[in-house]
Amino acid sequence: MRSFTFQNPTKLIFGKDKISSLAHEIDKNKKIMITFGGGSVKKNGVYDQVKQALQGFSTVEFWGIEPNPSIETLRKAITLGKAENIDFLLAVGGGSVLDGTKLIASAIPSQYDGWDLVIGKHPIEKILPFATVLTLPATGSEMNAGAVISKHETQEKFAFTATHPQFSILDPTVTFSLPPYQIACGIADTFVHVIEQYLTKTNESPLMDRWAEGILQTLIEIAPKIKADTHDYDTMSTFMLSATMALNGFVAMGVTQDWCTHMIGHELTALHGIAHGETLAIVLPGTMTVLKEQKAGKIRQLGERVFNIKQADPQDAITQTIAQTETFFRSLGLKTRLSEHGIGQDTINEIEKRFTARNVCFGENQNVNGALTRKILEQVL
Amino acid sequence: MRSFTFQNPTKLIFGKDKISSLAHEIDKNKKIMITFGGGSVKKNGVYDQVKQALQGFSTVEFWGIEPNPSIETLRKAITLGKAENIDFLLAVGGGSVLDGTKLIASAIPSQYDGWDLVIGKHPIEKILPFATVLTLPATGSEMNAGAVISKHETQEKFAFTATHPQFSILDPTVTFSLPPYQIACGIADTFVHVIEQYLTKTNESPLMDRWAEGILQTLIEIAPKIKADTHDYDTMSTFMLSATMALNGFVAMGVTQDWCTHMIGHELTALHGIAHGETLAIVLPGTMTVLKEQKAGKIRQLGERVFNIKQADPQDAITQTIAQTETFFRSLGLKTRLSEHGIGQDTINEIEKRFTARNVCFGENQNVNGALTRKILEQVL
Repeated sequence: MRSFTFQNPTKLIFGKDKISSLAHEIDKNKKIMITFGGGSVKKNGVYDQVKQALQGFSTVEFWGIEPNPSIETLRKAITLGKAENIDFLLAVGGGSVLDGTKLIASAIPSQYDGWDLVIGKHPIEKILPFATVLTLPATGSEMNAGAVISKHETQEKFAFTATHPQFSILDPTVTFSLPPYQIACGIADTFVHVIEQYLTKTNESPLMDRWAEGILQTLIEIAPKIKADTHDYDTMSTFMLSATMALNGFVAMGVTQDWCTHMIGHELTALHGIAHGETLAIVLPGTMTVLKEQKAGKIRQLGERVFNIKQADPQDAITQTIAQTETFFRSLGLKTRLSEHGIGQDTINEIEKRFTARNVCFGENQNVNGALTRKILEQVL
Repeated sequence: MRSFTFQNPTKLIFGKDKISSLAHEIDKNKKIMITFGGGSVKKNGVYDQVKQALQGFSTVEFWGIEPNPSIETLRKAITLGKAENIDFLLAVGGGSVLDGTKLIASAIPSQYDGWDLVIGKHPIEKILPFATVLTLPATGSEMNAGAVISKHETQEKFAFTATHPQFSILDPTVTFSLPPYQIACGIADTFVHVIEQYLTKTNESPLMDRWAEGILQTLIEIAPKIKADTHDYDTMSTFMLSATMALNGFVAMGVTQDWCTHMIGHELTALHGIAHGETLAIVLPGTMTVLKEQKAGKIRQLGERVFNIKQADPQDAITQTIAQTETFFRSLGLKTRLSEHGIGQDTINEIEKRFTARNVCFGENQNVNGALTRKILEQVL
C-alpha cells in the first residue's frame, strides 16, 4: 500500500427537505453571493427553497454559470463579488456551478486574474468559505477540493485545486426532474471517476478495490432502474450518494491513480463542447484497449468482480470486459465513438499536438503522452 | 435511504515512518500531554520516534492508561493536565489510550468530575484539541468522536461522545510486534463494528451495504495471512486501514444501526474483564440466532455476498451464515462461548437486572431489553 494523507472536512447534509437547514449552517453576519446556472432551479422549486431558508440574510445573486464554466463568465462574478464585499459563497446547481464557485471564492480575495489561478501562474493565497446545494449528481465537486474551468478564447479546459466546501446539501428529490441525458452523463462520470482510481495497479489496497467495485456494482444495478423511473427516492438517493463517494477521496487511499481518460476527455469538451460524461464514455474503452497489457490485472479483476465475467482465457476475459464497459455506456444512451460526433483525424491531430507541446505524461505509469493519446483516440474513431 | 448528516474532519496520515511528521502537525506553542498505556511503545520503538519528532516541544508524559481505561486512572491524568496547563493532547497507543485521552481532553477544561461527563450528568462544554499515534488497529477511535470508559468501583462501562482527533498517524510497521491475541481481538472488533451498522434492515443504502461487505470480505481474506505472518507490510496496512474505515462513519450513511452486541459485550468486560473483541465474538452469534427472523434479509445477504453461501432453503442459509460467523471468530483463535470463560447464569441474571433497571432498548428495532438479552446470552452459554 502506498503512503497517503487523507482529510475531507465537508459536512454532508443528506435527505429530503434538507435545503431548509441552510439557515442554521451559515453565519447571519455573512454577505452571501448565491451562484446559479441557467435557471432550472426556478422550475424545480430549489430556488424558492433556498430563498425561503435564507430570509433575513444579506444575499446577492449571480446567474448564468454555464456547463463547463468559463473564465469569461466567472470574471463577471468575481468583479461583482469584490464590489459587494462578499465573504461567503453558496453554489446552487450542478458540478459546473460548484466548480465555477470554487474559482470565484479563490479569486475574490486575490489581486490576480482568475485564469492565472487556474493555470497556477499565481498561487491561491486565500479562499472565501463556500457551501453547496447540489442539483445534479456527477462531478463529486460537492465533497472535494477540485474544479475544472474552461477558457473559450483559447478553447482550453484545465483542472485546479481550491478547497473543500464547508457543507453540501444533497436532497435527492431535486434530481427527479433532471433530463435523461444529464443523468446518463452523471452516471458515466461517476463510473469513470472510480475507474481512474481503480483501473491501475493490482493489490495496492484491497479494501479500496472492494469499495471502488462497490460503487461500480451499485451504478450498474441502479442504471436501468433510473432509466425506468427518475422519481424513485431510494434509487435517486443511491445515485446521488454514489456520485459523491466516487470522488471525495474515500476510494483513493493507498492506490495509484490514472486520470488520462479525463485529461483526454477535457480536450474533446474544449474543442467540440461535448458533455463531459459523454467524452469519458468515448475515451475509456480506447484507454482500456491501448493499455490492456499494462492494466491487464485490474481489467480482469473488474471483469470478474463487477461484470461477473469468468473466462478461462485471460485475453478473452480482457476483451469481454472492455466490450462490457462500452456496452454499459451505450445502455445509458450515450455515444461511444468519435465519428458519432462527426470527429475525425483533425481533432486527433490537434490533441496530439497540444499534449506534445505541453509535454504531458498521464496515467499510473506516466506514459500517456501525445503519441499514445493518438492511439487511444484512433481506437474509438 | 434514511436522511443523515456526515462529517469527519480527522486528518489521516498513513504509512511507514510517518511518526516523524508529528513535528509539522502540532503548533510549537502548545503545552502537550502525551498519554501512554503500559509501556509496549518503549519496546517497539514508537516512544523513541515520538520523542525524537517532538524535540523542542514542551511535553508532559502520562503513563498507565490500562485496557478498558478506567475513570480511576484517568482522574490522575486530568489532575496533572490541569496543574500543567495542558492545551494539547497526544495519545500514543491502542483504542484504550485513545478513548481515555478523549475523556482527559474533555475533562481538563471542565469543572465537573470526568465520570459525570461520561454518563451525561453534565455536558461537555469544551474539548482540548488532541491527536493520536495508533499502535493497535481495532476500535476506530483514531477517526471517530466516541470513547468507552470503565468505572472499577461499580464494575460499569459506558460509551460517550467527545470529538474527532485533529489528526491520526497510522504507521503499519508498529503493528508487527503485536501479540496474536490482541490482533485477533482487533479483527473481531473491526468485524463486529461493521456488522452493527450492516446487519439490520435491507435495501436502505445499497452502496453502504457494498462497502460494509467490502470490509468484511477483506477481513476474511487477510485474517489467515496475518496469522501466518504479522510482519507483512501490505497485509498489516490493509488490517489497519480496515479497522479505521469500520468505525469512522463511512459505512453508516443512510442506514439503521444496531449496537446491541456491543452493549452486551461491554457488560461482560465490566463484570469479568474479558477483552472487548472476544466479548463480541461470544455475543454476536447469540444476537444473530435470537434475532434471526428480524434480521433474516440481511443475514441472507451476508451469507451470500460475504461467506459465499448459496443455499436454496432460506432457513438453511441463515443457520449456515450464523455458523460461519462463529467459525470465523474461532479461526482467529477466540473463544465464542460464555462457559469457556467460566461464566454462567449468575452473570446473565446480573446483566438482565442491569438492563431492566436502566430500561434499555437496543438494536435496530429498539427491542433488545433485559429479557431479550437473557435469551441472547443463554444461546451462547
